[in-house]
Amino acid sequence: MRRRLLGYRKDIMNVIERARAAKHASIRMGALETDTKNRALEIVSRTLSERAEEIFQANRQDLERAEKEGVAAPLVKRLKFDASKLAEVQDGISSTIALPDPVARVISSMELDEGLVLVRRSCSLGVIGMIFESRPDALVQIATLCLKSGNAVMLKGGREAQETNRVLTALIADAAEEAGLPAGWITLIESRAEVGQLLDLGAYIDLIIPRGSNEFVRYIMEHTSIPVLGHADGICHAYVDRGADIEKSVRIVVDAKTQYVAVCNAIETLLVNEDIAPAFLPPVQTALRAKNVELRGCARTREILPGILPATDEDWETEYLDYIISIKVVDSLDDAIDHINEHGSHHTDLILTTEKKHAAVFMDLVDSASVMWNCSTRFADGFRYGLGAEVGISTSKIHARGPVGLEGLVSYKWRLSGDGHVVEDYSGNGAKSFTHRPLL
Amino acid sequence: MRRRLLGYRKDIMNVIERARAAKHASIRMGALETDTKNRALEIVSRTLSERAEEIFQANRQDLERAEKEGVAAPLVKRLKFDASKLAEVQDGISSTIALPDPVARVISSMELDEGLVLVRRSCSLGVIGMIFESRPDALVQIATLCLKSGNAVMLKGGREAQETNRVLTALIADAAEEAGLPAGWITLIESRAEVGQLLDLGAYIDLIIPRGSNEFVRYIMEHTSIPVLGHADGICHAYVDRGADIEKSVRIVVDAKTQYVAVCNAIETLLVNEDIAPAFLPPVQTALRAKNVELRGCARTREILPGILPATDEDWETEYLDYIISIKVVDSLDDAIDHINEHGSHHTDLILTTEKKHAAVFMDLVDSASVMWNCSTRFADGFRYGLGAEVGISTSKIHARGPVGLEGLVSYKWRLSGDGHVVEDYSGNGAKSFTHRPLL
Repeated sequence: MRRRLLGYRKDIMNVIERARAAKHASIRMGALETDTKNRALEIVSRTLSERAEEIFQANRQDLERAEKEGVAAPLVKRLKFDASKLAEVQDGISSTIALPDPVARVISSMELDEGLVLVRRSCSLGVIGMIFESRPDALVQIATLCLKSGNAVMLKGGREAQETNRVLTALIADAAEEAGLPAGWITLIESRAEVGQLLDLGAYIDLIIPRGSNEFVRYIMEHTSIPVLGHADGICHAYVDRGADIEKSVRIVVDAKTQYVAVCNAIETLLVNEDIAPAFLPPVQTALRAKNVELRGCARTREILPGILPATDEDWETEYLDYIISIKVVDSLDDAIDHINEHGSHHTDLILTTEKKHAAVFMDLVDSASVMWNCSTRFADGFRYGLGAEVGISTSKIHARGPVGLEGLVSYKWRLSGDGHVVEDYSGNGAKSFTHRPLL
Repeated sequence: MRRRLLGYRKDIMNVIERARAAKHASIRMGALETDTKNRALEIVSRTLSERAEEIFQANRQDLERAEKEGVAAPLVKRLKFDASKLAEVQDGISSTIALPDPVARVISSMELDEGLVLVRRSCSLGVIGMIFESRPDALVQIATLCLKSGNAVMLKGGREAQETNRVLTALIADAAEEAGLPAGWITLIESRAEVGQLLDLGAYIDLIIPRGSNEFVRYIMEHTSIPVLGHADGICHAYVDRGADIEKSVRIVVDAKTQYVAVCNAIETLLVNEDIAPAFLPPVQTALRAKNVELRGCARTREILPGILPATDEDWETEYLDYIISIKVVDSLDDAIDHINEHGSHHTDLILTTEKKHAAVFMDLVDSASVMWNCSTRFADGFRYGLGAEVGISTSKIHARGPVGLEGLVSYKWRLSGDGHVVEDYSGNGAKSFTHRPLL
């Protein structure tokens, strides 16, 4: 990998130097005691309070520039870092302190032979690359989760939040230094050159966490060979089975669609078994319309609900993130499963049924990170899943999947201790045998 | 991803169709009962015996062509599939049958609230892409491990083994069909076009396992965005600490270097603390020379062992896979750790010392998949680690690390079951609380 970096221009060298420094710091970060890390987090939280005015002032500069440049209102809203945001991130830090240390946990232990003991122990990943759009509170959240898990972090924020990001990074670095953490473990990349620079640093960065719009995340996933933790789309489905309880199912569908429409675990498509469609579609239409949801249906749906718009093929692959739902009548449980595996994004999918066997088949065969039975897809979330913190929601099957807590920021290491043991003694004639006795 | 495939030429469509079929079959593979999978493995083993002559004949064709085309002798040797290789792969299948099923294991379980239960359960990955050079026995090994773990597999072998690979694949497919496995779960890619075709099928393939030379594996890693399980280089180190037991350490170094030189977990570089160098280097030189190992040393090493060749900077980053060792005298434990993290390949590294604290620091700070204390690096192997089977040795920190058993072929899925639970009830005024009560 090192060879690939030689062609870089001089103005980027700085990023590479900082990546090297982060890698070097990550080795010490990974060996920190839990107490040291928690003390550092406490100091970060205290420093955020002490230097709040400095943060707010920087944020006001960003907000003013954004407004002057005509940045869209929702983006400006996300950019805001005020007293209420500060309280939120401080709550987050308190929860992070309370979480068990994910590092140096013994996962398994085995005696290979007398005096030869193998321990598999969790360890930090190394350097996390965090690439995010406007929300500066995400910077604090990810940086403190990286700290707790003994990782170094390279941050690349959007230009629109640069003043806020700069103050927040400096403040976290200062606080961590006070607690004795190694210099260089946190660094903010501000180069004007494209985000692509960070995406090429596979020699130093172990994992990329993107935060932003679907298009933003997809761009990152398609332009790096570094593993990415996250998801682009969240095209989630609810399948209403023949044997569904209509009243409960209507309530769940309404929640899954409308409880918060702009999020990845809201449903976009409703699949309805043909046997229950005549009984289910009218009441769900009434309930969804009461929430101002636009319904788009396949031909068979429109036979039952003639007033709604037609759904096109594009609808089955669209994440609306809005008060819109597409509806398709299907012949069977198998058809529903095939539709979801073909058109979904392997994020979160739901079956509504009173038949346990159907639920089991659905949960076995739907190839998604979270599969639900008779409850809202909106539960697919790190906090609701009891993970204590959410690093992200991953639709990859490699490493962490679904809502990911701190365990997404650790790997493991094999530690073998002996007393002069050599492999030659275990091979050929008169070879010794392994005991392979589990110790844990 | 689907869009990227549109530009493909017609002759490759066949590969894409088979990838789609493999993906479809993988859904059913992932839901197979353990008994069905074990029965299929038994039939595969029996069929290998019954149709042995067919395999050997195909293999003779490959061997004859290889000799005619002047293929290098070691490659021809690896190509051979005779009665002894058959017995070996059948032994492998027996061990695989004996292994616990890695699928549908409950990893954790938690009550989120009354009647709302979250279960995290292991599941198959989906489709494994296996790309290998000449050894046809690797085909049987990986295909049967994929079967046991409920995965579909796409195989791409070298042209030199095409007749053998064709017979073996057909035989495994026939045997599996007899056991009731879904068609299309195993497929052999034979297109003349580059291996690159398979490497672009990220829409269908979940994991690539390469088997072959370092250059071959490195090429694959650099040319796909699909996760790769494996390693290119194995530049492993032994560090002889100030407090090492000289006699035991010499024996371990000789084993780690010479027990089998052509493998990834053999050492290439010996780092020696300056305090112990005068006492350690002469006896280790004698012992290594007795095994015909060529020694190359840094300037300080050559002050003590003036007769040996000088080591250049290139030596610190070379995997010899041969009877050659490079030696460097270092000032301290920290210097040794820095050298290993800078020049190693994060595979397997060893400290030789009687000081427990030094061993702990080394094992904490060396950023490698396996870290050893007073035992040979050659132990870093799936069978020796008691994993029962070895899918590969990974130097990635994402997913499985180090020697990887069947768990490298599975992921997990979150299964949430409720009884009408909606998120709205847990938000805003009068929100219900989660219990988050661990059930396992």
